[in-house]
Amino acid sequence: MSILIKNVLVDGKQKDILIRNNKIEDIKKSIVAETDYKIDGKHKAAIPSFVNAHTHAAMNLMRGYADDMMLHDWLQNKIWPLETKLTEKDVYYGTKFACLEMIKSGTTFFNDMYWHLPRSVKAVEEIGMRGALNAVFIDMFDEEKTKEQIKLNKRLFEETRNASDRVQFTLGPHAVYTVSEESLCWAKEFADKHNLIVHIHLSETQKEVDDCIAKTKRRPVEYLDHIGFLGPNVVAAHTVWVNDKEIKLLKKHNVKVAHNPCSNMKLCSGVLPYKKLKKAGITVALGTDGSASNNSLNMLKEMKFAALLQKHHNRDPTLLPAEEAFKLGTVNGAKAFGLNAGEIAKGKLADLLLIDLKHLSLNPHHNMISNLVYSSGADCIDTTICDGNILMQNRKVKGEEKILEDANKIALDLVARK
Amino acid sequence: MSILIKNVLVDGKQKDILIRNNKIEDIKKSIVAETDYKIDGKHKAAIPSFVNAHTHAAMNLMRGYADDMMLHDWLQNKIWPLETKLTEKDVYYGTKFACLEMIKSGTTFFNDMYWHLPRSVKAVEEIGMRGALNAVFIDMFDEEKTKEQIKLNKRLFEETRNASDRVQFTLGPHAVYTVSEESLCWAKEFADKHNLIVHIHLSETQKEVDDCIAKTKRRPVEYLDHIGFLGPNVVAAHTVWVNDKEIKLLKKHNVKVAHNPCSNMKLCSGVLPYKKLKKAGITVALGTDGSASNNSLNMLKEMKFAALLQKHHNRDPTLLPAEEAFKLGTVNGAKAFGLNAGEIAKGKLADLLLIDLKHLSLNPHHNMISNLVYSSGADCIDTTICDGNILMQNRKVKGEEKILEDANKIALDLVARK
Repeated sequence: MSILIKNVLVDGKQKDILIRNNKIEDIKKSIVAETDYKIDGKHKAAIPSFVNAHTHAAMNLMRGYADDMMLHDWLQNKIWPLETKLTEKDVYYGTKFACLEMIKSGTTFFNDMYWHLPRSVKAVEEIGMRGALNAVFIDMFDEEKTKEQIKLNKRLFEETRNASDRVQFTLGPHAVYTVSEESLCWAKEFADKHNLIVHIHLSETQKEVDDCIAKTKRRPVEYLDHIGFLGPNVVAAHTVWVNDKEIKLLKKHNVKVAHNPCSNMKLCSGVLPYKKLKKAGITVALGTDGSASNNSLNMLKEMKFAALLQKHHNRDPTLLPAEEAFKLGTVNGAKAFGLNAGEIAKGKLADLLLIDLKHLSLNPHHNMISNLVYSSGADCIDTTICDGNILMQNRKVKGEEKILEDANKIALDLVARK
Repeated sequence: MSILIKNVLVDGKQKDILIRNNKIEDIKKSIVAETDYKIDGKHKAAIPSFVNAHTHAAMNLMRGYADDMMLHDWLQNKIWPLETKLTEKDVYYGTKFACLEMIKSGTTFFNDMYWHLPRSVKAVEEIGMRGALNAVFIDMFDEEKTKEQIKLNKRLFEETRNASDRVQFTLGPHAVYTVSEESLCWAKEFADKHNLIVHIHLSETQKEVDDCIAKTKRRPVEYLDHIGFLGPNVVAAHTVWVNDKEIKLLKKHNVKVAHNPCSNMKLCSGVLPYKKLKKAGITVALGTDGSASNNSLNMLKEMKFAALLQKHHNRDPTLLPAEEAFKLGTVNGAKAFGLNAGEIAKGKLADLLLIDLKHLSLNPHHNMISNLVYSSGADCIDTTICDGNILMQNRKVKGEEKILEDANKIALDLVARK
């Protein structure tokens, strides 16, 4: 497929963008080319699409089902009972719904951790996004489960490794309090051998740290360093409760961090020590977490929360300015997942958005990035392109009514189901 | 004007709503009536429209002009120099633009404080919203200015008192650090005499409190109590730095509080002691503050920030649940301004919204209010009705392209202007 976008704003200047196959082939003042599609970019700007660095997509089915509760009560009495009932079909429809929401809010890549992997792979493959997907690896320190989980992950890796160019299989050891040392080490080794990403929850709550110290005499990051788990292919979600020594270890091993401000605020987990991580030179990307604990997959909202939370927490309004919040959700995400994307430039993957400069939230035209981060909503995004394909144009996604209707039915049935 | 809305969801049940003149005349299962307009409410829910309890509407012209700066630097080097250049024309176009943004995000009433009052009155009158408007009262403790301001406010009161049923003239003494005791007392007396609201910034920053103590030996609320300023017609914006004694005084005088979480976070002002204010039984409404310090007038976003900030700050996820955040932006706002609105009920003013239940952010249908507060964006709002008139339908507002174009031109000119 080839697309020519005419007269679109790129980094403040009006240009043409030529997309061929899945790459940006050229950007210049005037391009003449025969292409399958032509898009009039007048009154629009091209920006990189967003990378959601940590989520549980199918939990979109649970959005609004239970909120404003104490963490343990919420998990034990609301979320876990639903999750035990979840079928493959639920995950397929839930993930597809989440993908629709992401496309409509400008995200083209997401890093997921959830059950029934083959169905989330199918959903991503069909809808045209990119995803780093895993099956959640939890063994609860039970040897039988360890064996089962290793076997399952080996099988899923073989089954999905060639499923799609747009899907990365990842290892998903859930956290230090749910996965045995043996399994953590196996996951890391398997990932290193096959050049895969390892996606883990890390130091999300104070309790996780206290429990880890009680059990291993080490804080979570120290423990993971000790067992040889840390490395540049590790994406750690949350990392709220990390001390200076742990930050050094994260940097030493080039671990990538996925920050989730809405979820951290809603569940009262704490605040990412962003200033220290930044100073240490650690790559911080941005994620929404699942819709049960946010309850949105909108990365623009997440950027505003990220910026305002850091300013507020550090009593420094200059911290995490709009430009930087925007980078957390774009180029830093691309870096974390080894994507040749996150910027509008020649040779990059054609993962990009056209935003409507006539949208009121993007006016007046003093500063487009500030407007995107602090003022806009998802509806300023007109077009979403991923891998050189148009997934949304004029805010319409093919088949969206059916995806939504199916997901709502499945979600209500999931709650009612015995 | 009369409107019949058929088959719309009201408090979870499908009903018809009959609007005659500016009131909700009836709500029941099936209404047969001749009306000027009929609206098909299928797949829609009727909810009260929002009350923005504190803003500076015309500052929409400055959105994105300067962000992420230290407060003093931001005001002195960016905002104030622009404001000295502001003309009546600027305020008219800026307010109109802000009104458009509010209508498109479901707000029909706003409490404003800004320069060139007659022009903001004209903008509100033309566009069909409600507003509590004032001219900002600042004398900087200068006797000449006190006289001028009193004269001006008397004149503006006479000029605007009969301008529109939808506009309330209010007194706007800016703050204790910009207005003399004489002026504060005059404003309160004048307001009491004419049954007007007094709109003031109160204890927004720690510095304001420290300076007030240094000058008057009293904290701001104590000082205002001492000079007889407090009363049920006072709407105090921010009230971040109030201690237990001051909270008692606010309650004793039935002062209304306008909470502005985004602005407080972005400018690092601090956190409203919501839990204590609520316990004391004080009416807390919600406002966006101006677009220079938010940078949005979207009350749905503000509700999410309010809920998540309080949970986070108090480390209690049960605090400020979605239902309560929604009330802050609706019925509490109505209460603060003596509006017979904020609820969908017989006899109330016809100030209401129709939201699109097929919008993806409102799915799945587990909990509509949770979805509105935590998940949705302004684009889930299909119809905005104020005073019995349809201001937006199918997301279209009459003349919006022109309003936006004018505002953008004026805003860019304001910055460039010598």
